[in-house]
Amino acid sequence: MTGKKAGQPDKGARTVLPPAPTDDSLFWAVIPAGGSGTRLWPVSRVARPKFLLPLRGDGTRSLLQQTTARLGALAAPERTLVVCGPGHAAAVARQLPSLPDTNILVEPAPKGSGPAIGLAAALIARDQPDAIMGSFAADHEIQDEESFTRAVRVAMAAAAAGWLVAVGLEPTRPETGYGYVERSDETVVTTDGGAAFRAVSFVEKPDRARATRYVASGRFLWNAGMFVWQAGTLMAELARLQPELHAGLCRVAEAWGSPLQDAVAADVWAGLPVSTIDEGVMERASRVAVVPAEMGWSDIGDWHVLGQLGHPDADGNSLRGDVLPVSTTNSTAWSETNRLIALVGLDNVVVVDTEDALLVADRSHSQEVRKVVERLRERRRDELT
Amino acid sequence: MTGKKAGQPDKGARTVLPPAPTDDSLFWAVIPAGGSGTRLWPVSRVARPKFLLPLRGDGTRSLLQQTTARLGALAAPERTLVVCGPGHAAAVARQLPSLPDTNILVEPAPKGSGPAIGLAAALIARDQPDAIMGSFAADHEIQDEESFTRAVRVAMAAAAAGWLVAVGLEPTRPETGYGYVERSDETVVTTDGGAAFRAVSFVEKPDRARATRYVASGRFLWNAGMFVWQAGTLMAELARLQPELHAGLCRVAEAWGSPLQDAVAADVWAGLPVSTIDEGVMERASRVAVVPAEMGWSDIGDWHVLGQLGHPDADGNSLRGDVLPVSTTNSTAWSETNRLIALVGLDNVVVVDTEDALLVADRSHSQEVRKVVERLRERRRDELT
Repeated sequence: MTGKKAGQPDKGARTVLPPAPTDDSLFWAVIPAGGSGTRLWPVSRVARPKFLLPLRGDGTRSLLQQTTARLGALAAPERTLVVCGPGHAAAVARQLPSLPDTNILVEPAPKGSGPAIGLAAALIARDQPDAIMGSFAADHEIQDEESFTRAVRVAMAAAAAGWLVAVGLEPTRPETGYGYVERSDETVVTTDGGAAFRAVSFVEKPDRARATRYVASGRFLWNAGMFVWQAGTLMAELARLQPELHAGLCRVAEAWGSPLQDAVAADVWAGLPVSTIDEGVMERASRVAVVPAEMGWSDIGDWHVLGQLGHPDADGNSLRGDVLPVSTTNSTAWSETNRLIALVGLDNVVVVDTEDALLVADRSHSQEVRKVVERLRERRRDELT
Repeated sequence: MTGKKAGQPDKGARTVLPPAPTDDSLFWAVIPAGGSGTRLWPVSRVARPKFLLPLRGDGTRSLLQQTTARLGALAAPERTLVVCGPGHAAAVARQLPSLPDTNILVEPAPKGSGPAIGLAAALIARDQPDAIMGSFAADHEIQDEESFTRAVRVAMAAAAAGWLVAVGLEPTRPETGYGYVERSDETVVTTDGGAAFRAVSFVEKPDRARATRYVASGRFLWNAGMFVWQAGTLMAELARLQPELHAGLCRVAEAWGSPLQDAVAADVWAGLPVSTIDEGVMERASRVAVVPAEMGWSDIGDWHVLGQLGHPDADGNSLRGDVLPVSTTNSTAWSETNRLIALVGLDNVVVVDTEDALLVADRSHSQEVRKVVERLRERRRDELT
């Protein structure tokens, strides 16, 4: 926590998280807001990562705002936690005015999704170990919010039975950039909204041939980093699988809200290795379930994906700004300037125009945009990253 | 002429062109500076056409300045005439400070190369009908200036014998965008520097198959609009082939330098049809010769050509400005801004970055850049053209 609202009474060391409302859900929505989104450079920058940008929807709300609003169907602002880095805390606070100050958890440094989600879990578990929490990336798009909410409710039911639950997306293509979850036919919970199945395995980014087999099998789902569990269940698994991380999180949770909070957190975080919740827990835990869902999900991972998401014109072009296409097809133009952009004779190209940097890329090479950012950093041109 | 230098004595109606120096050449260099260069948009604009831009060379001198300097080996500034439109007169005057005011001939309106070159010929012929003049486009590049000068001197020898002479370029590819001159084996003049041959025919832009045959034949040369003749010879041919144009030019020449100059020119020009010197004279005249030459010539006609002219890096890229290429080949970037340009995964693409407009084009579609300008005009966005 970086501070308290002026004039707000000090709530004392043990009440830094507001008490859970007395409704019956006990559900906490956790939003790890990390990642720099270098593949969406030059729109995405260090100080303005993907989740802070109004990349989709009506273009007025950031992905973080859209994510928070979506989770509003499941958790009130008082039970919504955003975990972010020091450099983004102010922007997060301003973008989410209804979120209590103390619900913005500022990690001292980025250590991967394991410590970030673990921090939220430790703070929730300290007071409410049986509370169910769900963790959802700040920068994904979900078009069918009802399906999303329904799937999370199924996951909550499985979580209440002691499972670590992933919400998995029915794959629509043999994507090699995502992880997959293989499910069994064993249902661990069935509700009106659907079923959760015992998970067989988590697979990191597969090659094309394997991805194609996965999609054909009907048993593999995209792992989109949507996880639901009881806070206490996760902490118990962490104690077993990553005892050092667990001990560190407990130390931080103990000090959280006290004058020692920042010092303890910095000390613990400095000693933590980077780890992801997927590798650290989900791939190795015993009682893991998955809820298959279709919800029009996208991670908006790069310009290729972003170009596909819009409503292309008859030539397959997605154009934002003052753009004049001539003999151009399947291309994306994204302008943040007032300049005219003329596209002539192009196919499958993305043009991103900002005040201080211009990107022109073949869409099939969109992943390589991160190399631009890497090279700029090598050349000490951090002002452009 | 639009005016006289302040303080300069009025030379009277009959001495508006300075007397030829008493050297033995009597050669006048004429530079028709027309054409808007829309295929080089957005760098080239209505108010800043190709010939005013420092597109080649060391990047400090405009193509017009380079052309004038090149012709300095053949004609002093006093015998160099630039024919331009009213909108470019001031820029021409400022770019060529050594040119006398009266050597900048301002056409009232663009009527093609016939009236433009004819105006210069009429003014020269009025006082010096046996003077030899050469006409050379303001916006071409010539890398081998010695070869150029040598070829023009051969053409001058043929012109002195009464021929209308074209300097033709040995073709280096089956270009379909140029006109060709077919030569015979009959030499009309032979000098130490080379020979002039009787020309058989002028051919407008051929199709690919014919262009390929032309190049293979060894008898066809590119017609680059470089013409040399006695001023009186051209006027005599104009009188025969385009009597109305000839009469108009004589009226204008008669009034040139008098208080009636602008009124007469405007009146005559308003009635002139558009015509080119190629179609109007060269294709139909009887005594036409051609001097074959190699001189590293280029018309810098579009971005594709401009990209080929530089010294590409190992990946075939020609990059000007703050450009960061990643996995990019055979591409051209031309920046007039301070912005970083990142190119990712591209091949054969041209990116032109200016303050108010950005062009991204496939180089093989470079000719279509003019369509952008056409559409902008249709949409009344003239400020961008």
